[in-house]
Amino acid sequence: MSNAKIEPKTLPGFMELLPNDQIRFNEIKEKIQKSYEKFGFLPLDTPIIESSEVLLAKAGGETEKQIYRFNKGDSDLALRFDLTVPLAKYVAEYYGELSFPFKRYQIGKVYRGEKAQAGRYREFYQCDIDIIGDGSLSIMHDAEIPSVIYTTFKSLGFENFTICINNRKILNGMFEYLELNEKSVDILRIIDKIEKIGKANVIKELENLGLETNQIDTIMKFLEISGTSDEKIEALKNLGIETEIFKTGVNELETVIKQIRVCKVPEKKFAVDLSIARGLDYYTGTVYETFLNDYKKLGSVCSGGRYENLAEYYTDKKLPGVGISIGLSRFFYQIDKENILENENKSISKVLVVSMDETGIGYALDVATTLRDNNINTEVFLEDKKLKAKFKYADKLHIPYVAVIGEEEIKTNTVTLKDMQSGEQEKLSIEEIIKKIK
Amino acid sequence: MSNAKIEPKTLPGFMELLPNDQIRFNEIKEKIQKSYEKFGFLPLDTPIIESSEVLLAKAGGETEKQIYRFNKGDSDLALRFDLTVPLAKYVAEYYGELSFPFKRYQIGKVYRGEKAQAGRYREFYQCDIDIIGDGSLSIMHDAEIPSVIYTTFKSLGFENFTICINNRKILNGMFEYLELNEKSVDILRIIDKIEKIGKANVIKELENLGLETNQIDTIMKFLEISGTSDEKIEALKNLGIETEIFKTGVNELETVIKQIRVCKVPEKKFAVDLSIARGLDYYTGTVYETFLNDYKKLGSVCSGGRYENLAEYYTDKKLPGVGISIGLSRFFYQIDKENILENENKSISKVLVVSMDETGIGYALDVATTLRDNNINTEVFLEDKKLKAKFKYADKLHIPYVAVIGEEEIKTNTVTLKDMQSGEQEKLSIEEIIKKIK
Repeated sequence: MSNAKIEPKTLPGFMELLPNDQIRFNEIKEKIQKSYEKFGFLPLDTPIIESSEVLLAKAGGETEKQIYRFNKGDSDLALRFDLTVPLAKYVAEYYGELSFPFKRYQIGKVYRGEKAQAGRYREFYQCDIDIIGDGSLSIMHDAEIPSVIYTTFKSLGFENFTICINNRKILNGMFEYLELNEKSVDILRIIDKIEKIGKANVIKELENLGLETNQIDTIMKFLEISGTSDEKIEALKNLGIETEIFKTGVNELETVIKQIRVCKVPEKKFAVDLSIARGLDYYTGTVYETFLNDYKKLGSVCSGGRYENLAEYYTDKKLPGVGISIGLSRFFYQIDKENILENENKSISKVLVVSMDETGIGYALDVATTLRDNNINTEVFLEDKKLKAKFKYADKLHIPYVAVIGEEEIKTNTVTLKDMQSGEQEKLSIEEIIKKIK
Repeated sequence: MSNAKIEPKTLPGFMELLPNDQIRFNEIKEKIQKSYEKFGFLPLDTPIIESSEVLLAKAGGETEKQIYRFNKGDSDLALRFDLTVPLAKYVAEYYGELSFPFKRYQIGKVYRGEKAQAGRYREFYQCDIDIIGDGSLSIMHDAEIPSVIYTTFKSLGFENFTICINNRKILNGMFEYLELNEKSVDILRIIDKIEKIGKANVIKELENLGLETNQIDTIMKFLEISGTSDEKIEALKNLGIETEIFKTGVNELETVIKQIRVCKVPEKKFAVDLSIARGLDYYTGTVYETFLNDYKKLGSVCSGGRYENLAEYYTDKKLPGVGISIGLSRFFYQIDKENILENENKSISKVLVVSMDETGIGYALDVATTLRDNNINTEVFLEDKKLKAKFKYADKLHIPYVAVIGEEEIKTNTVTLKDMQSGEQEKLSIEEIIKKIK
């Protein structure tokens, strides 16, 4: 064996957590999963590696550069960079065996070789849900999505968040009306920046783009719409834009808002926000962004929308869908850094059983088995250490109870249970311990 | 948009399941996780990509050939091929921040570019636990491991399985006694095949290896030891082998067997099996293999053992450990193919709420929200389809209850609940439904 050691180093941009943080991370992941399942979304677990041909059918530009792509034998392979492309492949591949609308969630790691920087990961979890229709998909699903977002963030312990909702048809319809279709991508890019650069600069940039004053006027009138969700919808109707696509967009938005209320999402938790214009080329109808109101600088923590055709690169079948994604790794980094959720100490074990000396180990194992049989996560400290070291172990791992076993306890068939938080200890029968801890 | 379609194809050797199977797979995965947590193992989730230098510190031969290794920018990267090397890196890297004995579980995908064949996957789940000591690790942990295996397989619904236990020191001690240390690897390889090739061929191969008759006699006497676990241990003691390592091995085995009983693992579920000699170069003490007795051809479904030093390639710290692994993807493939566990239909949703017509959608959403608030996974069928199609959807997804909503139900604030299995239906209040389904 060589004595030259290799430095044990995790790659930059790859999240790796200490156990206490991993427990916290997993709790959040599980809560998201449980929320998704509450709405009947089915689990998927597609491979992390796909053939490059399949994975890059659509990609291009920045995304393609970031992709982990390599050869193995004769195969040109790549690591998935999102969960949407694998979903498209999956639905096209197993179309005949799926029931539509096909509702699935997937929580898994994706890979992007981005420039490493704080909070940006090259390997990160996405938590996605999508509802895919066969040929068509009712607008009602667009209304159900905010209900899932609401349930999810509530289950995570958040109180003050807003699900912002818009519809891409409204903007597109306005562009059509203003005969600005060809410049729409550039215009979207400019007005998307309004929060950052302000109205005056938006106007200047629109002028630079060659827009006429009356066109800019309508756009700015649109951008200035404010008030409640209902007031905004009313104002949209009064803009005097008569194209079909615009009217469809306003109608869809109105329906979505109306049905969100039926789903009992509280009024404060959602709002029409005409300034969000997610994804310049992917989303075609309803779009969502979710903000923690006390931490807006985090950006949207859950985004998504409606798209017209999921799998056009793989199949002629028309598969419209609507979905959202939570970028969990970045989200966890942010809420951890900002101390947004209680950063409390977590443990897997509820009880650490320790024996005063070796003679008690048998009894300790016996006690532990009984506790486990009663669904209480229990560890036995099996190393031959001083009692103090055993307590220190429980303390470092934040295990809430230590069950101490000595001669007396064995004789009386009891256990001395110490509450590590309060420091209190009492001699109890195993039945009493089970009752107390449950 | 191009009309030329790319075939949506998953790579060979990569498991991808339909939703019903995915639900079954996830159930097994969660049961394994819960069992591991019952014993206080802490979760880890190390990256799938590591630097090749770190990951291949130890690898060689067959493993190295199978590795997915590639460059990204200047970095020489590789996908993990097991969860043990990342654990070694992790413990060496965060040594100062961990509590010892460090007990961790990790359930994750690993990658090996093996020849694709039925039941062999290139991407597959491993479910590992390991207990790592700082400098030393009590033999008691070797006794706890079978207790984890027992709890895990019991929780998965298995009744007839045997955890086979051996100790590598016994063989090594015998080789030392016979002065066959230098040939031990070859001898192990030969006697490991005894089930396959039979005693006569083992003797022949040992002769070919140049062993003397008295050496072969002792080895065969050893191989012929039979009876109960206690009888085998007694027979080992009576072999007349006096080397220290042999005696230590027998003592350890005796202690492990004794303490397994204390952990209340039923007598029928474990056995000393001197024929298992796991891993020719890695394990140094106790070794485990687990067999489903009605399906022995599956081979060991859970294996592991004690090793002397986890992270010698990364650190001077001596880190002995003991652990086991379940190769979940292959295991799932096998029990699915052999119909070993009930292959029953699974669903995420407990209830599908359907409205007779569009006017009932609001009420349906309302009902669903209430059921979800009571932790009942509930879907609303939101597409505008005939009632028959809605029932067909519930049937295909194996959703056990359909809640039908019509004019009458809305008026009386009730729901007609159909049990899809029995076909029975009854008009119930929402409270009654909650009570019934819970």
